[in-house]
Amino acid sequence: MKITATKENLLFGVSTVQKAVNAKNTLPILTCIKLETQGEKLSFTATDLEIGIQCDVPVEILEEGTVVIPARYFTEIVRKLPDSVITLELINDNELLIQYDHSQLNLKTMPADEFPKLPEVEGEYKLAIQALKIKQMIKQIVFACSTDEGRPLFTGVLCEIENNEIRMISTDTHRLALKKDQIQNNFKNSFNFIVPAKILAEMARLIQDDEEICYMSIAKNLATFVISNIQIVCRLFDGQFPNYKQVIPAQYTLKIKTNTKLLQEAVERISLFSLNNSSNTIQVKIEKNILTLFSQSELGKGYEQIQIESEGEPVEIAFNYRYLLDVFRVLEDENLTIEFTGPLSPGIIRPVQSDTFLYLILPVRS
Amino acid sequence: MKITATKENLLFGVSTVQKAVNAKNTLPILTCIKLETQGEKLSFTATDLEIGIQCDVPVEILEEGTVVIPARYFTEIVRKLPDSVITLELINDNELLIQYDHSQLNLKTMPADEFPKLPEVEGEYKLAIQALKIKQMIKQIVFACSTDEGRPLFTGVLCEIENNEIRMISTDTHRLALKKDQIQNNFKNSFNFIVPAKILAEMARLIQDDEEICYMSIAKNLATFVISNIQIVCRLFDGQFPNYKQVIPAQYTLKIKTNTKLLQEAVERISLFSLNNSSNTIQVKIEKNILTLFSQSELGKGYEQIQIESEGEPVEIAFNYRYLLDVFRVLEDENLTIEFTGPLSPGIIRPVQSDTFLYLILPVRS
Repeated sequence: MKITATKENLLFGVSTVQKAVNAKNTLPILTCIKLETQGEKLSFTATDLEIGIQCDVPVEILEEGTVVIPARYFTEIVRKLPDSVITLELINDNELLIQYDHSQLNLKTMPADEFPKLPEVEGEYKLAIQALKIKQMIKQIVFACSTDEGRPLFTGVLCEIENNEIRMISTDTHRLALKKDQIQNNFKNSFNFIVPAKILAEMARLIQDDEEICYMSIAKNLATFVISNIQIVCRLFDGQFPNYKQVIPAQYTLKIKTNTKLLQEAVERISLFSLNNSSNTIQVKIEKNILTLFSQSELGKGYEQIQIESEGEPVEIAFNYRYLLDVFRVLEDENLTIEFTGPLSPGIIRPVQSDTFLYLILPVRS
Repeated sequence: MKITATKENLLFGVSTVQKAVNAKNTLPILTCIKLETQGEKLSFTATDLEIGIQCDVPVEILEEGTVVIPARYFTEIVRKLPDSVITLELINDNELLIQYDHSQLNLKTMPADEFPKLPEVEGEYKLAIQALKIKQMIKQIVFACSTDEGRPLFTGVLCEIENNEIRMISTDTHRLALKKDQIQNNFKNSFNFIVPAKILAEMARLIQDDEEICYMSIAKNLATFVISNIQIVCRLFDGQFPNYKQVIPAQYTLKIKTNTKLLQEAVERISLFSLNNSSNTIQVKIEKNILTLFSQSELGKGYEQIQIESEGEPVEIAFNYRYLLDVFRVLEDENLTIEFTGPLSPGIIRPVQSDTFLYLILPVRS
């Protein structure tokens, strides 16, 4: 292999595949990146066998070939390269020669044939969605997933496809987030799949250009996501996601409307008194047009009052403040509504302007 | 005590004294901040008995008094306060009532008389220097101090006063930085003192306005630094700093001149091969107008060549690359010179445009 490239293109390649490198893997080959000439492009690949990321960047190819190199050092080198023409060349069968200006670096390579191939996914379902849309969806639901590897299903996001709609649902069993949007296809028969949350988070990070389309190809246990010159391959979770529709109350006894930022700031302040208390609990009391937040600990106590619009019966309820703060950060609306059905039933938070997002939060029993 | 204040002023007060709070101190009173009305101002004080910081901010005083409160929680609260008028009031002898808008927080206080008094420093020497100058001096030398508490003297900065000049010297015994500048006084008899590096670093952080003057008052074991409405009191080190002048070579056999950024970037790249090698060593070879950097490890090897101007005899020498990178970050000159006196003698790095800074770096014996 021999190519010339700009620093910018090399940096884009290594940064894109970075998250699929497991630097601590005991298999040295999995701590590497594969560089392979493909037509007019250089293809960067990394995989930890859970996720594989591939990315093609334009380079000038002088000689075709493949090189596998330690990701950490190659990435550090590329970051620090000058903005000159960079030549990469495989020499002596096991050295990558990196040349620029009057300098050169030789980096030891690994045997290219030991690098695992990314699985070819022949998807049963193929769908397309605007990259901007899916990035937004991911951002609004991924935080509500569990991080408990003991219950792997809840570290994934349920994706439901029905007609031309995609719904993403995440839950850690204490709260649940649901976001829906339009896809560009139309499926008569609904289907669903569960994607690891960390793979969606990485996908959202890689989406730069809002104009792009994200193409998904879904097989039984595998999925491929293609966005422009980037391809992500990942395993899907196998299992039955609980019926989330059952836990969303169909009615409410109280509905309030208030300013998102005012409520967020009040919860932030009042939660300071819960910092030392393991349940992270704050009390909420709603009477007519006043919402009162209350918290107390050995540090002191406090209350915050906010003007609200409300219809329905007064309620006193307690929540884990962290679950409230989490959703305020992703609610992209100046105002929100919360629906209550008594002190032991979940609260449902929605933006006022849109019916595509809902957040369910279970009360804390005190 | 009862006062009203803006969030901005309260935040300035707590942020300024923050570094003197030792959050992990086993004496709870030292994890606190003292608020005390003084004339038209509210005075914030914190101390860990090593350093004391006091800062006065304008407030409206409704009732004089003193309050001592846990620094961590008060700081968190102040950060999150709305931009309204804030009222602070001591109630029930042991609660600080914080009121704003329609809300209030009560924070438990500590007994004010248990809070240690900052020592009154009646300095033998009083000097004044532009705050901008001392901030620059600190930035250029503080990184070369030792962090080894086993040799406390080298965790301090030697300040030498002679006529109208101040010289700051720091060393960890592997390298030495020296910076000098003018003070506004003139002392016939020279004197010196050793200030803990971390206190100077904090002082540099607190200097915001370049127009300010820093007033120093130096007693035997204590010093006070006053910058505008901020006062820092600290202990000085007691001990004899080694005679640094002896180690600076008076002559050289080779002097080179090169571009600071080019050399910095070349060292950064070449040092990647030393990441796994405990001595952090890179080889430097100078012949005529070419400086060659070389490094090698089990990862691979590399060389970098840079055009230089040089006069004197060729040299081959080895340095710890970290000590080189440290000084490149603070050298505020496009070009630098390095003087050599053979492979076993220190290199002396200076900016081209100024004779007020010098950096000595010992070679690594290979």
